[in-house]
Amino acid sequence: MEENRESRIIEGRNAVLEAFRSGKTIDRLFVLEGCKDGPVQTIIREADKHKDTVVSFVKKERLDQISQTGKHQGVIAYGAVYDYADIEDIMEKAAAKNEDPFIIFLDNIEDPHNLGAIIRTANLCGAHGVVIPKHRAVGLTATVAKASAGAINYTPVAKVTNITKTMEQLKKDGMWFVCADMGGTTMYDLNLTGPIGLVIGNEGNGVSDLVKKNCDMIASIPMSGDIDSLNASVACGVLAYEIVRQRIAKLR
Amino acid sequence: MEENRESRIIEGRNAVLEAFRSGKTIDRLFVLEGCKDGPVQTIIREADKHKDTVVSFVKKERLDQISQTGKHQGVIAYGAVYDYADIEDIMEKAAAKNEDPFIIFLDNIEDPHNLGAIIRTANLCGAHGVVIPKHRAVGLTATVAKASAGAINYTPVAKVTNITKTMEQLKKDGMWFVCADMGGTTMYDLNLTGPIGLVIGNEGNGVSDLVKKNCDMIASIPMSGDIDSLNASVACGVLAYEIVRQRIAKLR
Repeated sequence: MEENRESRIIEGRNAVLEAFRSGKTIDRLFVLEGCKDGPVQTIIREADKHKDTVVSFVKKERLDQISQTGKHQGVIAYGAVYDYADIEDIMEKAAAKNEDPFIIFLDNIEDPHNLGAIIRTANLCGAHGVVIPKHRAVGLTATVAKASAGAINYTPVAKVTNITKTMEQLKKDGMWFVCADMGGTTMYDLNLTGPIGLVIGNEGNGVSDLVKKNCDMIASIPMSGDIDSLNASVACGVLAYEIVRQRIAKLR
Repeated sequence: MEENRESRIIEGRNAVLEAFRSGKTIDRLFVLEGCKDGPVQTIIREADKHKDTVVSFVKKERLDQISQTGKHQGVIAYGAVYDYADIEDIMEKAAAKNEDPFIIFLDNIEDPHNLGAIIRTANLCGAHGVVIPKHRAVGLTATVAKASAGAINYTPVAKVTNITKTMEQLKKDGMWFVCADMGGTTMYDLNLTGPIGLVIGNEGNGVSDLVKKNCDMIASIPMSGDIDSLNASVACGVLAYEIVRQRIAKLR
């Protein structure tokens, strides 16, 4: 295992099985297509128990290409560089500070620099945590950690299977959700105080339709230029600080 | 010349001299140390006439390393991928729109992704241009252009030899300068309307002392976290949109 890599690569049957059993977070598991060996089946069963892990069945050539040791024995796992938190951890953080929950939801951010910058913003603007989806998004890699300027050590990041389901649950607990999108209400005209989830969409495609449907408000950043949209981490910062401004104004 | 490179590399005496004479913006010129040849002296004189160019005298090994053709003849120039504007172009853009000038000054931003994201923000928040220093900062490379999401084609970027001198001149024309730094006044409590220059400091060191001394106001973004500072392009976005908010509120 090398500390400087994007993720910690774990290869070989015993190493991978041990990683699962020790409770390590495994982001991805690559298994040799069609392999029916007992130990490999045990690993797949372990992976099924861990909701964090995305399992892919691939050809031998792909495994050989990923492998650093050349001795993968049909299984390669990508361990998270940093550990993920639970939604409960984030809610408890807000409760411990006696503050309304303020959580940043990322609907498929792909660029590790953006994810890192957003965790950094979350830490400084007083958000209690960040939620990312399990599939089709960047996880807590070394590049993300570096771009977060250390914030990854303080701000909990939870990884969930289904962003909309998590949102539905939190709405039952009284949280409101606002997503950033064009054609919404200008952010200055929305009431963004109270327990809030700020949803930031994918760099290219924005917020997905299903997630948008689950939001209570759509906030637009006023734009007067020639291009379409701000960088995702900049948009997140601008909206997060509008929430901060409204919270401060309410206290005064 | 290759379009996909960070800068356009121009090699050889005729090509470099022609580039200068045709009015191309040359960001950097590398000249063989101790070379007293007539044509090379002519190129150095041309470079001296062009304030945009930083000249470095280097050993043959360095030139060989940079060279793509192997035929540099003792001179290699880095041409800007995009052309720079003048401060006058930026001021005219504000005048043409009948708006108070709003310019973003970058005190040595080094990361091309940050510069690109800031040009993107400048375009969308209605700033009339961006000013960068000639020395010790990233210029308009292909990476910057990509990170700007096309904004580089619309928002003028001026490169100046001395940021503080440019600020002094613009202050005589009635502009106010605000820089982002810790220990200043909370941004919500400052009057950021009117003709304004927003100064963003270097990623690691912040705003330099001399530039800070030349600012009329120091604005602080409220921070309640564990780490020191926001990403530079996020901080720029947050402050730029506080200026936008105040401008909109004033018009209402």
